[in-house]
Amino acid sequence: MMELEVKSGKGNYSIYIGKKEYSLLPDYLEKAHIHTDSPIVLVADKNVLGLSYPQQILSILEHAGYKAYIIDVEPGDESKSLATCESIYYRLLDLGIHRTGVIIAVGGGVIGDLAGFIAATFERGIRFIQAPTTLLAHDSSIGGKVGINLARGKNLVGAFYPPNFVLYDVTVLGSLPEREWRNGMAEVIKHGLIGNKNLLARLYEHPLTSFPGAADAEQLLAAGMKVKVDIVEEDELESGIRMALNLGHTIGHAVEQLSHYAIHHGEAVAIGICAEAQISVARGYLTREEALYIKELFQKHGLPTEVPDLPIEDVFAKIEVDKKHRGSGWTFALPSMTERAKIVHDVTRGEVRAACELS
Amino acid sequence: MMELEVKSGKGNYSIYIGKKEYSLLPDYLEKAHIHTDSPIVLVADKNVLGLSYPQQILSILEHAGYKAYIIDVEPGDESKSLATCESIYYRLLDLGIHRTGVIIAVGGGVIGDLAGFIAATFERGIRFIQAPTTLLAHDSSIGGKVGINLARGKNLVGAFYPPNFVLYDVTVLGSLPEREWRNGMAEVIKHGLIGNKNLLARLYEHPLTSFPGAADAEQLLAAGMKVKVDIVEEDELESGIRMALNLGHTIGHAVEQLSHYAIHHGEAVAIGICAEAQISVARGYLTREEALYIKELFQKHGLPTEVPDLPIEDVFAKIEVDKKHRGSGWTFALPSMTERAKIVHDVTRGEVRAACELS
Repeated sequence: MMELEVKSGKGNYSIYIGKKEYSLLPDYLEKAHIHTDSPIVLVADKNVLGLSYPQQILSILEHAGYKAYIIDVEPGDESKSLATCESIYYRLLDLGIHRTGVIIAVGGGVIGDLAGFIAATFERGIRFIQAPTTLLAHDSSIGGKVGINLARGKNLVGAFYPPNFVLYDVTVLGSLPEREWRNGMAEVIKHGLIGNKNLLARLYEHPLTSFPGAADAEQLLAAGMKVKVDIVEEDELESGIRMALNLGHTIGHAVEQLSHYAIHHGEAVAIGICAEAQISVARGYLTREEALYIKELFQKHGLPTEVPDLPIEDVFAKIEVDKKHRGSGWTFALPSMTERAKIVHDVTRGEVRAACELS
Repeated sequence: MMELEVKSGKGNYSIYIGKKEYSLLPDYLEKAHIHTDSPIVLVADKNVLGLSYPQQILSILEHAGYKAYIIDVEPGDESKSLATCESIYYRLLDLGIHRTGVIIAVGGGVIGDLAGFIAATFERGIRFIQAPTTLLAHDSSIGGKVGINLARGKNLVGAFYPPNFVLYDVTVLGSLPEREWRNGMAEVIKHGLIGNKNLLARLYEHPLTSFPGAADAEQLLAAGMKVKVDIVEEDELESGIRMALNLGHTIGHAVEQLSHYAIHHGEAVAIGICAEAQISVARGYLTREEALYIKELFQKHGLPTEVPDLPIEDVFAKIEVDKKHRGSGWTFALPSMTERAKIVHDVTRGEVRAACELS
């Protein structure tokens, strides 16, 4: 078992990573001063609810004396909507949940973002635990960003609302479909690029295209999460270096949305980083060889690296509505091999067009 | 001009109260590090927009070099809804507002709550200024509580999101309709009960049933706001003594909603405090004379003090859905003349029924 501590302006919290974390949940709850008089609501999507562990968590909680409930959500990014929020608020009220209640998000990034936003806003904020069940969610489950989408763009409504703790039982990763595993590796590679070039070198030599067993998964997760923890501690509210974590996400979000989510999040990030690496090359932040190395890293993990054929004006429109711009140009976190990322605020349409064509 | 400083876990902020505060707005913005590259959006309801000062504020901002916009909202509590939020998010996007934007809530409590919730959640939080224009809003504009209603109950969705500063230009109070002035006095009296018994004694001797002129209004506001500031500094997230501020609000909210807002907020608070004083009398927290003194204070200010004829089961249902309960009984802040309020968690249906009949 590993424990990482995250310092946050709204209270520090722990990340527990290990093989038996679900059975340890009652201990972690006690440590977080959540006692059996606090009702607990697991929020999960219907796919996850078809697997065994939500019921397992429920039994563990009930056995420890907690009242526990499940709220189910349709799978997919479409559930990150105001309409879903409204229905969940009502279901919480139906269950008699009030301020003493606790929400546990059991699932991937979508559930973490949605359930976290509910926790941040229901009765002005209730306690909240992240229990990520995908590799991808090792990114979204820390740092306190929660939110939902509007039809106009992703994550346009949200809050900074750190969880009370994060509980990562790596055994669940063993049952992930391979495509989901690979999607998660895209964020691991992103974290390597930002803060752990040794991890990158290891992954280049020995790509991890599927679950490597619990012990290795624990190490991998801890390495990826450590990069993120260091950055969010430095810049919790994303006024500076935290923008490095947006590496690949500016073009990536556009591609993801324009594909109507046929391209999954990690795949879109891989495509985004490779395209943004072309901007770095053009600006002299990366050599051609470095950009190729990055591209090969993703390819070795079975991830796409080329921007699909999309009307470039649609890409511009999505970037424009995205919140990452300031002043005259667009704000981008561009890949670098010498620093965490190059944060720039003056990327032009011409540069994006050229990068999308080249990638 | 008076300035109160509020200490907050999310950053301290100032309350400016005076006769020329609108013209000083550019100075206060600079002091809060909000420079002319930050676009500013005034959110106000259509009634307020029919008056002169929103345009006046707009001109002052433009004259100082800021880009400033207005978003109008339908008047009334019905605007504190998810649907209104959604439309405002889109209007912000249409105006090209992103994270650097600033919202100024120009109006009463409804606008402060709604615009504050938008500021708390748009792109995970943008800067926010409260510019209250009613006497009633001297209560809601400080302390950082923002939120909206669900059909099932008031303020069920929200956040703790303190403003960057509060700007109170008392000259606007001169044009308030008398009923609105009296509604505001209900919260002033509530604050007196909680933390300034001298203020109560003065109001008992010299009731203020209409605007007393800018200088006296400034003093009155400062006295009322000081009580609130002291309490929210002590307990920002409402885990303890801040509940004292709910004095009269438990029964009051029920009455307000069941009247379909024909009974205004301050009137409902007056009714609620008088009913809750009966519970205090029954429990020995207040003498009959003290309860009468409180009732007379409200009567001298032209405020209602008796619970209207409502099905008591409907009152119970509203209290039940309200978030102020914990454990077996209901949580109430009950009036006291010897401490700020008696916070109790075991009020029964029988006590509420008797209090409503007696009041």
